[in-house]
Amino acid sequence: MSEECIENPERIQIDADSIKHQNRVNLKELINPNKGDNSALLILNQKIDIPKELFYKIWKLHDLKICADGAANRLYDYVKDDESIRTKYLPDYIIGDLDSLSEKVFNYYKEKNVVIIRQTTQYSTDFTKCVNLISLHFNSPKFHSLISNKNALQSNHGIELEEGIHTLYNSMTKSLVFSQVTPISLLALGGIGGRFDQTIHSITQLYTLSKEASYFKLCYITVTDLIFLINKNGTLIKYDPQFRNSCIGNCGLLPIGEATVINETRGLKWDVKNWPTSVVNGRVSSSNRFVGKECCYIDTKDDIILNIEIFVDKLINFL
Amino acid sequence: MSEECIENPERIQIDADSIKHQNRVNLKELINPNKGDNSALLILNQKIDIPKELFYKIWKLHDLKICADGAANRLYDYVKDDESIRTKYLPDYIIGDLDSLSEKVFNYYKEKNVVIIRQTTQYSTDFTKCVNLISLHFNSPKFHSLISNKNALQSNHGIELEEGIHTLYNSMTKSLVFSQVTPISLLALGGIGGRFDQTIHSITQLYTLSKEASYFKLCYITVTDLIFLINKNGTLIKYDPQFRNSCIGNCGLLPIGEATVINETRGLKWDVKNWPTSVVNGRVSSSNRFVGKECCYIDTKDDIILNIEIFVDKLINFL
Repeated sequence: MSEECIENPERIQIDADSIKHQNRVNLKELINPNKGDNSALLILNQKIDIPKELFYKIWKLHDLKICADGAANRLYDYVKDDESIRTKYLPDYIIGDLDSLSEKVFNYYKEKNVVIIRQTTQYSTDFTKCVNLISLHFNSPKFHSLISNKNALQSNHGIELEEGIHTLYNSMTKSLVFSQVTPISLLALGGIGGRFDQTIHSITQLYTLSKEASYFKLCYITVTDLIFLINKNGTLIKYDPQFRNSCIGNCGLLPIGEATVINETRGLKWDVKNWPTSVVNGRVSSSNRFVGKECCYIDTKDDIILNIEIFVDKLINFL
Repeated sequence: MSEECIENPERIQIDADSIKHQNRVNLKELINPNKGDNSALLILNQKIDIPKELFYKIWKLHDLKICADGAANRLYDYVKDDESIRTKYLPDYIIGDLDSLSEKVFNYYKEKNVVIIRQTTQYSTDFTKCVNLISLHFNSPKFHSLISNKNALQSNHGIELEEGIHTLYNSMTKSLVFSQVTPISLLALGGIGGRFDQTIHSITQLYTLSKEASYFKLCYITVTDLIFLINKNGTLIKYDPQFRNSCIGNCGLLPIGEATVINETRGLKWDVKNWPTSVVNGRVSSSNRFVGKECCYIDTKDDIILNIEIFVDKLINFL
């Protein structure tokens, strides 16, 4: 089958019912989670630069809030204008080796009864520590009985200091039936756009979670983008036309990690068929955009990364 | 051969003479080009966020300065405190479809005799337009005779409006003997850290130039990183120990685009041998660092992307 690339008009109708798709993504639910999901907001250690109104709204839309180590400093600084505001935005957990957490911030959140867990292992990243903790929070009664033990407060909440979270997680995972786990909508802030090896590490997490803990639906939010993984074998991406018109700009289908083939897209400005794509060969569909009125469809041979430009100032009106 | 990973002390001696390396990189020359090279500073359309003192220094260290389309707005705004400073920092060229260039900025630089070239094709990016222009500037007498024709001033400097630069470049390239072309040190600002598909597009350019115009030595600079391509088959990376101690932090060996094998590293905190690396499999050497006193050595099966954390506030003292 030969490759094709066509340029579409600015708006076209896509007949979703005629498409045999395997997966569904609702764009708005990446930020405003489906009520049936568990949800978590993960703050990573990078300056928080999205508008305050949006940040506070996103905070309220998520069940659980976690700061990765020094991210707690960032949160503390972000809400600094008003102590009464700071007390309203207390994370549920702070976790990491805590080397980058300032003493002032540590003491502040400790006094407010935030659960602060030290994990000293250097063989996993703060991101992995957070993700294991989130899964334990939603799925492990044993974890809750440990941290609710009042006597444990002085001893790292009863969690073994080096890698207790990983040990608990690995033990829980053995008995977890993935298909029965309630999906976890995980929105991560601060994973992209800082030090470049950390950005790429964040991208690896999209692939890793998709394979190893597929009940997570991970999306990164930055001041310019939403970034998430599109599973192979066809995904229908749905959105409200108004939301699309106001909040969404360009997009890119990014074969980070491996070359692949875009079998078919429907509803992009430049739709392709049987289109080999590769970073190494300089052939990537970037600066594309959604022109399907209410949805578009993407079918790739392998999992692929999708970024969608967002206008953060407009987003708040649709949440 | 089985894979190895060892943890080194904070400083170790690497015997460069004993290593059979194919390629050499001098870290400082990525920013302060070797006097024997041609050199260019490429400004892409993203807010300029490096410290002013560093920006002005880098500007002076490069022969040629090019703004990609709306990047000229960014330059204009960056130096706004003082008109006498703005007149000192005039780019040699502005090129693009010019849709994002404001009228005020267009008129300002036009009046100052900056060569502004409109290229309307949507089938190449501003980045590619710039790179072709830079190569023409250094290698094509025909290009210079076109733009120096005074009568041509009114007609896009004699360059065909749609894709004249590409036509001239393709015609020149046919007769160019790559091995005889003077290397071009190309430092690009604003390619990484903005919209994520543009960041990945910038990464594709590292691979593309390395294959198609290997006389370019392209490096991206951001407020946190230097990012460039390491060719396969062994590269010795040299640096002044003081420079390394003051200006350099973490690094990552990033197999963006394809899985590969790190055959060997010497002089990293975590040195590896026969180490398969892949973004898809979540196995990437990130948060690593240089511990070789004056150099380190990286040998990979395929080309790979290297990022090195820089402390921009310190850099100025070593340029």
